[in-house]
Amino acid sequence: MKNISILGSTGSIGKQTLDVVKNHRERFKVVGLSALENIDEVEKQIYEFDPEIVAIFNQDKAEILSNRVGRKIKIVSGIDGLIEVATLNSANIVVTSVVGSIGLIPTLEAIRCNKTIALANKETLVVAGELVMNEAQKYGVEIIPVDSEHSAIFQCLQGEDIKNISRIILTASGGSFRDWTKEEIEKASAEDALRHPTWNMGQKVTIDSATLMNKGLEVIEARWLFNLELDKIDVIVHPQSIIHSMVEYKDNSIISQMGLPDMRTPIQYALSYPERINSNVEKLDFNKLEELTFMAPDTNRFPCLSLAYEALKIGKTMPCVLNGANEVLVEYFLKNKIRFYDIPELIEKAMSVHEPFSYKTVDELLEVDKWVRSWIKNQLK
Amino acid sequence: MKNISILGSTGSIGKQTLDVVKNHRERFKVVGLSALENIDEVEKQIYEFDPEIVAIFNQDKAEILSNRVGRKIKIVSGIDGLIEVATLNSANIVVTSVVGSIGLIPTLEAIRCNKTIALANKETLVVAGELVMNEAQKYGVEIIPVDSEHSAIFQCLQGEDIKNISRIILTASGGSFRDWTKEEIEKASAEDALRHPTWNMGQKVTIDSATLMNKGLEVIEARWLFNLELDKIDVIVHPQSIIHSMVEYKDNSIISQMGLPDMRTPIQYALSYPERINSNVEKLDFNKLEELTFMAPDTNRFPCLSLAYEALKIGKTMPCVLNGANEVLVEYFLKNKIRFYDIPELIEKAMSVHEPFSYKTVDELLEVDKWVRSWIKNQLK
Repeated sequence: MKNISILGSTGSIGKQTLDVVKNHRERFKVVGLSALENIDEVEKQIYEFDPEIVAIFNQDKAEILSNRVGRKIKIVSGIDGLIEVATLNSANIVVTSVVGSIGLIPTLEAIRCNKTIALANKETLVVAGELVMNEAQKYGVEIIPVDSEHSAIFQCLQGEDIKNISRIILTASGGSFRDWTKEEIEKASAEDALRHPTWNMGQKVTIDSATLMNKGLEVIEARWLFNLELDKIDVIVHPQSIIHSMVEYKDNSIISQMGLPDMRTPIQYALSYPERINSNVEKLDFNKLEELTFMAPDTNRFPCLSLAYEALKIGKTMPCVLNGANEVLVEYFLKNKIRFYDIPELIEKAMSVHEPFSYKTVDELLEVDKWVRSWIKNQLK
Repeated sequence: MKNISILGSTGSIGKQTLDVVKNHRERFKVVGLSALENIDEVEKQIYEFDPEIVAIFNQDKAEILSNRVGRKIKIVSGIDGLIEVATLNSANIVVTSVVGSIGLIPTLEAIRCNKTIALANKETLVVAGELVMNEAQKYGVEIIPVDSEHSAIFQCLQGEDIKNISRIILTASGGSFRDWTKEEIEKASAEDALRHPTWNMGQKVTIDSATLMNKGLEVIEARWLFNLELDKIDVIVHPQSIIHSMVEYKDNSIISQMGLPDMRTPIQYALSYPERINSNVEKLDFNKLEELTFMAPDTNRFPCLSLAYEALKIGKTMPCVLNGANEVLVEYFLKNKIRFYDIPELIEKAMSVHEPFSYKTVDELLEVDKWVRSWIKNQLK
């Protein structure tokens, strides 16, 4: 039996993780849950999954929930509460499905308590990839990707030597504006951007998908997860989202992972790894499949992808600036307070203002993150 | 250094094997060559690769070659000569790239001398799959597929547990007549059939590809190579020949192997396995790639595929009958002595006449093979 703590259990990945658990009660048990503030959803999850502990980030909401269910279960709050769920003694695996750089500290603490990490929070590796991977190596902890692209690559690497990789090819659906002109995109609303063609995901990642920043963040994530140089990470737009990513080896043979776009596949693989277990995800039917197509990403219409490559090339604290700026800007865009192209424009400005430096500690990164968020907000006043 | 004997060095696979060797002289050395009768080609190969021994199946030709180069090298002939090359003391790997069931005995003898088999002769497993695989297991010998489809599956199985396979999906180009109507195919000539859309292969396999018998033989080959039940082996037509085959696991995740259609990739993998080494095969460029499409095979226009499934389902000596009949009929078709649909019709007749029995020895199989060949020839008198 694998015991699981979920950071962010009311989000899209969190809920789908619980769906996977429900189908494999004989293998998986939920011991910890955490959420930002959606206590109604968490209450239902408590009754269904009977965890030992629940963290609600928002303290007032935590108290309300405690009053409702507190006799049967421990309710904690704030970042300390999140860390408590992440480091729970009985947990073997921590699913980090919170959104944004808030996942960084609980993930690090989980690593230091030797928990296997099922990583769905890509911002953790974007902001502090080197630090996190060093810590994982130090504690002998496995970080298993949950992102469909990185899970695909992880699967394609089984039984292979990472040294033989010629390049990895991350596939991108192209997002909601793949076939829109620049002029159309300029006027696009948050609602437009949220209509993702193939994947059913949370709001933040759906906007990131529309800007292609999501693919940029994934490039940075892949750089650290698989210890690859930048020139070995390619991106190709593949609108049907059937091939989830590929690894090209030095003999020019390509191994790819395919399936219908359903996040439960990579989630389950991260939980069951190194085993594969039955799934009730729908099978891919090649007789029903339309053609699979591929095209180069258009960095003119989607400059965020170039900005991410640029930030990774500069390194040091620059990816942290890219990520923090992006998080704030996506929030504003979701409220229709800024236009689509304000996102790359202001990220670029923030990057040009920031003087990147080599960080040693998480606190330094958190300082940079704080700075860039307030800098962006000031620009938008 | 790996020492290699090649059975069938003047055929398409044999020549491409030598091309791979030429690019990796630091790893591979040719120690044995064999051919049916093309001594001019073999002579060139002798000067270029300096083997210890050469077998020419045709005794008269062997003598002519011996007169030309005999002082420097041992020339042998007949089936005994072929066996001598297959069991050569200094050889580590035997590439079995002869065409047809003539490959069976040398392959078995190579196994009994603990040679690793790079299997390009699918007829060996079609005719005697159970016997050959049992023998390989008994001698602890690895059989590494060279067929692009089986190499793809073999690659997709690295690091995975064969027990977790839900099904394998063999891809088929669809052959030269993929888009022809039944009426057009009825009148097709050997020349028409030899115009294969994607793969550059030998004549026998190109005709087999046009009838889809090639895919049928591959289904039988896969059954034995990967120890899979019939209902776990699917075929899908994929005209572009970019995805070379796939494995679907029980979590409905599909791993596939891709690349430009170039036989040197699977040949090199079989030689370098378990390592991957550099290749001068052209890289797949997704920006240049047309769409990838898939369709169910049409067993009405291409009944040979159904016949192969049928022969495998019946088992015993029936696949041997299917194969022997097919070999003779392809020969006749290549000489334009019969029509395209005579091939499945007469195979079906031969199968209906034959009373399948459980064989114990190769001799029993060779008897059946002999019977079916003469039976077919009698029908065509």
